[in-house]
Amino acid sequence: MSPSHIYTAYDEELKYLMRRITEMGGLAEQMVGDSVRALVNSDAALAQKVISDDVIMDAAEREIGDKAIITIARRQPVAADLREIIGALRIANDLERVGDLGKSNAKRVMAVQATGVPRKLARGLEHLSELAMIQLKEVLDVYNTRSAEKAKSIRDRDEEIDAMYTSLFRELLTYMMEDPRNITSCTHLLFCAKNIERIGDHATNIAETIYYMTTGAQPEGERPKDDMTSSFGAVTE
Amino acid sequence: MSPSHIYTAYDEELKYLMRRITEMGGLAEQMVGDSVRALVNSDAALAQKVISDDVIMDAAEREIGDKAIITIARRQPVAADLREIIGALRIANDLERVGDLGKSNAKRVMAVQATGVPRKLARGLEHLSELAMIQLKEVLDVYNTRSAEKAKSIRDRDEEIDAMYTSLFRELLTYMMEDPRNITSCTHLLFCAKNIERIGDHATNIAETIYYMTTGAQPEGERPKDDMTSSFGAVTE
Repeated sequence: MSPSHIYTAYDEELKYLMRRITEMGGLAEQMVGDSVRALVNSDAALAQKVISDDVIMDAAEREIGDKAIITIARRQPVAADLREIIGALRIANDLERVGDLGKSNAKRVMAVQATGVPRKLARGLEHLSELAMIQLKEVLDVYNTRSAEKAKSIRDRDEEIDAMYTSLFRELLTYMMEDPRNITSCTHLLFCAKNIERIGDHATNIAETIYYMTTGAQPEGERPKDDMTSSFGAVTE
Repeated sequence: MSPSHIYTAYDEELKYLMRRITEMGGLAEQMVGDSVRALVNSDAALAQKVISDDVIMDAAEREIGDKAIITIARRQPVAADLREIIGALRIANDLERVGDLGKSNAKRVMAVQATGVPRKLARGLEHLSELAMIQLKEVLDVYNTRSAEKAKSIRDRDEEIDAMYTSLFRELLTYMMEDPRNITSCTHLLFCAKNIERIGDHATNIAETIYYMTTGAQPEGERPKDDMTSSFGAVTE
């Protein structure tokens, strides 16, 4: 937030946006953890809670969007203040999508319940979701401190999640090949793992947005992360 | 675009944003079609083209974002003009993600090549992608005509894509169960089908944004679309 403007009500509006983003981030983190707990424990009630939480996330994104536009129209911000508000819109959008991914996992709880989640896969999913939650938490901390340096370092390491996802992907394929009765539930777990990997991508998006808010520039260089599984099984001649 | 403002240069700026969005939309459509053609024909060169096209999409989104912010800072728009610019940001974001999904499909071409795509599945994927491309095309037409009514009607029918996706999902599971050697490539095709279904979701997002740009309101009522496969295989007691 630039110190140059003098309207206290305006400061309040910017602070309000920041607070709402932080709340959305907290709920997003919780939804990710809850959805994986629901999957691993076949907990339909917890899954239902995640699905309800997503309604709150959607409403929060809409409210932040409306407030942001009113603030732009009323205050006519430029430079850092304008980037602050546009950044809030983008971050709210990424967090809303994290909520969608949590909901998508929660909705698969009943389908996976049929066979349950083998212990080893459960641990893999839990580990993957922990990594995603840590990344979300760190990126929200950076949102509050506005360190461009830290934002860049989060963006530069999404590899841990990707490596974990790749190993889960292989393991799920193995389970499917061992016993065709695992195919349906493992397919759902594959989508769940992919959802969590995508949550990591959204954390990276948010880090990029914070870098932009703070510096006015896009972080340089190719984004290092990518889904390494897409060539898995490829014929290499 | 509101007829009230008098700056011709400003009109030009808004028209420029519209033109760039339309170009992004055209490329997005093409990427979706190309990626499925590459999959079905194991065409590595076409897949590589889609992957290169995604770089153009990323650059276009960044450019639209930069231009939009400069326009807001310079022209201090309110009401319809401000919604126009914020809408352009949102639509560029959805189109960029459509490009990502096309790229994700293209990157699976080599992995699927190992077993090839059975004719029936190929037809299913082609049909699904045609539906997604029609939806993208229609939503871009609505973007140019700004009909809130038509935007709402696109949003209200994403069901055809969802039904087609559900049927492909079932079919892919059947192939996997029939022969474990199909599991790896069918897993990639599952992700491809899901990617195309998500392209339909982005078209719906864009329709909602156009409705908002035109009316200043969010379309009412729950969004009808949802992934129907997430409970597939669930124990129903």
